[in-house]
Amino acid sequence: MKIYELNKLTSKKLNDLLKRPVAESLDTFDRVNSIIKKIKCGGLKEAINYARDFDGLSTNKIFVEKMEFADAEKHITAAERRAFQTAFNNIYKFHLAQLPKELKISTMPGVTCIRKFKPISDVGLYIPGGSAVLPSTVLMLGIPAKIAGCERIVISTPVKGNEINPYILYAANLCGINEVIKIGGVQGIALMAYGDKKFNKVNKIFGPGNKYVTLAKKIVNLDFEGASIDMAAGPSEVLVIADEYANPCFVASDLLSQAEHGEESQVILVCLDRNFAKKVKVEIANQISLIERNEIAVKSLKNSRIFIVENIPQAIEMSNIYAPEHLILNVKNYNNFIRQIKNAGSVFLGEYSPESAGDYASGTNHSLPTNGLAKTFGGVTVEMFMKSISYQKLTRQGLKNISEAVVTLANVEKLQAHANAVKVRLK
Amino acid sequence: MKIYELNKLTSKKLNDLLKRPVAESLDTFDRVNSIIKKIKCGGLKEAINYARDFDGLSTNKIFVEKMEFADAEKHITAAERRAFQTAFNNIYKFHLAQLPKELKISTMPGVTCIRKFKPISDVGLYIPGGSAVLPSTVLMLGIPAKIAGCERIVISTPVKGNEINPYILYAANLCGINEVIKIGGVQGIALMAYGDKKFNKVNKIFGPGNKYVTLAKKIVNLDFEGASIDMAAGPSEVLVIADEYANPCFVASDLLSQAEHGEESQVILVCLDRNFAKKVKVEIANQISLIERNEIAVKSLKNSRIFIVENIPQAIEMSNIYAPEHLILNVKNYNNFIRQIKNAGSVFLGEYSPESAGDYASGTNHSLPTNGLAKTFGGVTVEMFMKSISYQKLTRQGLKNISEAVVTLANVEKLQAHANAVKVRLK
Repeated sequence: MKIYELNKLTSKKLNDLLKRPVAESLDTFDRVNSIIKKIKCGGLKEAINYARDFDGLSTNKIFVEKMEFADAEKHITAAERRAFQTAFNNIYKFHLAQLPKELKISTMPGVTCIRKFKPISDVGLYIPGGSAVLPSTVLMLGIPAKIAGCERIVISTPVKGNEINPYILYAANLCGINEVIKIGGVQGIALMAYGDKKFNKVNKIFGPGNKYVTLAKKIVNLDFEGASIDMAAGPSEVLVIADEYANPCFVASDLLSQAEHGEESQVILVCLDRNFAKKVKVEIANQISLIERNEIAVKSLKNSRIFIVENIPQAIEMSNIYAPEHLILNVKNYNNFIRQIKNAGSVFLGEYSPESAGDYASGTNHSLPTNGLAKTFGGVTVEMFMKSISYQKLTRQGLKNISEAVVTLANVEKLQAHANAVKVRLK
Repeated sequence: MKIYELNKLTSKKLNDLLKRPVAESLDTFDRVNSIIKKIKCGGLKEAINYARDFDGLSTNKIFVEKMEFADAEKHITAAERRAFQTAFNNIYKFHLAQLPKELKISTMPGVTCIRKFKPISDVGLYIPGGSAVLPSTVLMLGIPAKIAGCERIVISTPVKGNEINPYILYAANLCGINEVIKIGGVQGIALMAYGDKKFNKVNKIFGPGNKYVTLAKKIVNLDFEGASIDMAAGPSEVLVIADEYANPCFVASDLLSQAEHGEESQVILVCLDRNFAKKVKVEIANQISLIERNEIAVKSLKNSRIFIVENIPQAIEMSNIYAPEHLILNVKNYNNFIRQIKNAGSVFLGEYSPESAGDYASGTNHSLPTNGLAKTFGGVTVEMFMKSISYQKLTRQGLKNISEAVVTLANVEKLQAHANAVKVRLK
């Protein structure tokens, strides 16, 4: 991790240093697009062929059966059950509170405007199954989908051979999800977006994935016959702001827990002096040997940087430019700085709030905007599994009260039939 | 408008009849994409060139100046000012109530989760300027953007010659928006998405447009260096459900006010008997000659259909499949049926709630999901100009309380550094 002093950088140089390591590429667009088109026409059969080729799927029975859920349960230890249940409870609690309320406003006498949120009927949850299998993501997507009231929730995940990871099935069952397909990757996204005679399409697809999955989500979202998507996530990232009171050992552990995610993960430390930065580097060297995924962490740390700033407000200003997925504010008086945070996915306040708390069990969602998307997107919420509908109810007097405005504006826009719809009612 | 009896249709035939007239096409993808790429490199200069070629722009000064706002004001009559003000007030009232509140939940002792919404800093509003100039859309996008607290709001609109439509400038000024560029179309979208030395890019683009504009929005949204978008809207549409108490004259006026929007607009009537349908057709014939845009209306009515159903619940079931942008529920006991509505953009309840009320002044937003997107999207809201940030604050005891869950789940996912970040803190 190279160390830079912020005040010595030009803004161009800073922007270069804050660039994400892998610019998401559209090079593979044609290839991914052609797979999607084939599955749009050929349906399930075609999707199974690709899953055989790409993932090594060895079965044609891609819908997980009841028996398989029951078998999965047997693999889970008592301690694991407790852990899943604690995570489930906390995530449920925080997300239940997000359920939007009905809004009803009288804007003028006789004119009532209402807004209600309704669930999206059919949703698809993509759960990666490559280098890391992530049952926690099942909870992070399944719980808000259930709270929103989605009628049908489908999980798509890649399977090598025939057996699906038991933790994924256990977590799905915990969420009350019983439709799981053993097809993931581009073919899983395409199948969910377009469906088949034997498998109804979904309306919106959620969840993280590698760059092919992300591109596939973007492509089906382009096509109005495809599906909407939550967002196009990229590699995971963290920015840690540490002051002079921070414990270098804690800071190092947070940087490493991000770095182990994948080679393309990005890790940024912003602190107040070079001496502290060096202590963190020593701690990283101590801790890295203890983790299994240390090769991945070593590679991802190469993309990572340390910035020395003069004070915490300057650090937050820089963080707002970067718009990190995770922001750890490991500073003593963090309450003084919360208001200044403009762009971030999830924020971890104080020295006892490691990122892994939010990744699993604090209650916040871990499906978050990466790659600077935190400037426009938040993490997954209950509302993302719903859409709003507005309603208006006018009495005859209500219509009279706004009639002059409607008729005048319709005339301004030369839309006479719009004006006429008011006039005929008030004759 | 051809009449069909719903019970005599197969579900395949019904689906065909409910297809939108113009399937949005990706045929022009390459052409639109190449224009966008040129502007991504060439910036303002390139955008101006395209605006000259496509729209007949005759100036290089594309940023509207103070003087032009003042001049625009002079064109607006007192009655028009009153109309804009009434619309502004009602829209403001309904949207202010949407401003999301902070959420703070203690999920476990010592574990606090918070969610706040923050404005998106830079937003672009696209205002069409082709066959119909729509200053009302300035209010519908500008008011929620202001309420959300966006720091910078830019309007892009195409201009022939040099002068911008005065109503657009008047409405912009009313919303407190002073940055307006005289470039619209694909080039306006590209310029807003990528910016230039003299014009900062925006983070998210809102607003309706023709099929090229919509495709341009989709393309810049594909590129992580581009911009997010609200949604990809298509031609406008209405579905009217009328019972035996409905006035055929009112129903005809609503169908026509949608049909005059554009040749591709779609208009659907669902009613209880053939006799009523015929009365509506007679009324349409009477009213159509009185409107200026009757040629457009005649063409769009060709795409339009009447369905005869047995009862109102059957009508709503059909409407949920279609997912109309506008749903007019012109039935006596509409309160009995509201709960059954699952997919719709904006709903107009009872005989005195014409669509034009919501288009201009009831207070609801008129920027709504078309083309079946109402299954997954709602109309424009204040929240769409914001994003959520989640925060978590753990005490040492709080971390201890979830530590078993975090460590166990991290081990399940083989992410040891995640577990370690908890362990080092509790040593």
